[in-house]
Amino acid sequence: MSEDFSGGAAYVDGRFVPLDKATLPITDWGYRRSDVTYDVVSVWRGLFFRLDDHIARFRRSMNALRLSPAETDDDIRRILDRCVRLSGLREAYVAFDCVRGRPIVGKPYHPAHTRNYVIAFARPWVDLFSPEIQARGAHLIVAKAPRIPEESIDPTVKNFHWGDLTRALFEAHDADADGAVLVDRGGFVTEGPGYNIFSVTAGEVATPDRGALEGVTRKSVIELCAELDIRCSVRPVLVQELLQADEIFVTTTAGGPMPVSRINGRMMGNDRPGPLSSRLKATFWKKREAGWHGAPIDYDAPP
Amino acid sequence: MSEDFSGGAAYVDGRFVPLDKATLPITDWGYRRSDVTYDVVSVWRGLFFRLDDHIARFRRSMNALRLSPAETDDDIRRILDRCVRLSGLREAYVAFDCVRGRPIVGKPYHPAHTRNYVIAFARPWVDLFSPEIQARGAHLIVAKAPRIPEESIDPTVKNFHWGDLTRALFEAHDADADGAVLVDRGGFVTEGPGYNIFSVTAGEVATPDRGALEGVTRKSVIELCAELDIRCSVRPVLVQELLQADEIFVTTTAGGPMPVSRINGRMMGNDRPGPLSSRLKATFWKKREAGWHGAPIDYDAPP
Repeated sequence: MSEDFSGGAAYVDGRFVPLDKATLPITDWGYRRSDVTYDVVSVWRGLFFRLDDHIARFRRSMNALRLSPAETDDDIRRILDRCVRLSGLREAYVAFDCVRGRPIVGKPYHPAHTRNYVIAFARPWVDLFSPEIQARGAHLIVAKAPRIPEESIDPTVKNFHWGDLTRALFEAHDADADGAVLVDRGGFVTEGPGYNIFSVTAGEVATPDRGALEGVTRKSVIELCAELDIRCSVRPVLVQELLQADEIFVTTTAGGPMPVSRINGRMMGNDRPGPLSSRLKATFWKKREAGWHGAPIDYDAPP
Repeated sequence: MSEDFSGGAAYVDGRFVPLDKATLPITDWGYRRSDVTYDVVSVWRGLFFRLDDHIARFRRSMNALRLSPAETDDDIRRILDRCVRLSGLREAYVAFDCVRGRPIVGKPYHPAHTRNYVIAFARPWVDLFSPEIQARGAHLIVAKAPRIPEESIDPTVKNFHWGDLTRALFEAHDADADGAVLVDRGGFVTEGPGYNIFSVTAGEVATPDRGALEGVTRKSVIELCAELDIRCSVRPVLVQELLQADEIFVTTTAGGPMPVSRINGRMMGNDRPGPLSSRLKATFWKKREAGWHGAPIDYDAPP
């Protein structure tokens, strides 16, 4: 009966299982029509980071897609907590999804007539860029193809419509780069595969006001800028501005703020992480270590 | 050992299982990034319909996404055949997917470094619109939100990026309609959730040349038009043309050509399936019954 959760612990529609045994039906519209929303929260030194923000965003996303699982926000909080406790991880990547479910025999074959349910898992910490890449600064390219426009798919509702992002990852791979930036059809910067984008020009930090997820790490960096008296704007950012920026960095739950040292092959500064990006990253982690926005996990509690 | 395949039979990465036991990992990028392509072929009276066309399209889709599973085209043919034989179904909906797979520990965290694999299943026949709806003609609406543009996601590579289609299905549901038509940002008709669109005006049949899957049933209807000396064009179709059409019908593997009797509440003809749509539907099924483009399944063969 005692299962091994050390590789990660999952919750699928009411049951807790080791991550490597967690599956969903191949006929679930969550897979088959990517009819699903999700969120990801990180755990560092045994603390959830801004858990309430993530759960609130998840609920907004579910409402936008008319997904209503049985689980309340409090249930979700308890589920995530238990996944982390089962895994025993002090540093974890914790994802939670709500899927549409399957068509039900005898009911109309329509997404309105399904039973929505929650999937969640805690797995060992993921750095979107490896520590080595973070140390030298990531190399990004601007992807050729435009991001799916927000009129078709709302990027503030976190989703798995990653076809354009995956193609951009292959473009980056072919160019020997680490990642990509996607632009909309008006030439404005949107986001990358799993991260928000920031540019720094003449001491001003800027991040796009459109076409992007309202990232929790993005929001945290905007707050940090205010604390540190760094000018920071949420506004349209043309790709030309990005290509000529003094510094670039990205933000993601999977590793926090991460400096970029090259864009389309151009080296910024001395081909190393820029001073402002490095300062924001260091401050972010110093505060995280000190428990900033942290929600503790009681690892000794009974399951 | 003897499992019950009567509800459907599936193949998942090398193993045949009853459909209701067929699952994929929640960490598979096929689910988690909708990094997958698929195809669907129908079986009617024990015959696959245009199986080679479907397999060829599936291979083109996989190549476009750089998916290369171990299975050859011949393997896929054998797998689909065996799924149908296991299920014993004479009328079936047979789907086959290729998913990206999971990130592999010790390899770069990138879709280029995964093991792609095939999923397939045969399940009882699905009519996208019920026989009752087909008899009176489907009621469609034009969805408010634009289809994901082909520059971002290529609609000829069959995919599960259904967010816009699902939203359109809810719009239809709210308007008490059966389905929806999606338009691109230029006002041109693209496709619906699971079907191609045809309009008929002054005896000319027309179907969009853009923003849509190159459907196998669509292609079959185009061939039928040539045989029946009906003028048929593949060309841009503005939404205004559709809204004023004499007749509309849709085509799908999940049920063949299906007449439409209302668009945005407007009744066409006498609020019944139009004569040309009905003639094409009847001819399609007469030919199917006679084995048109059929590949037989040897139900008595050993597994």
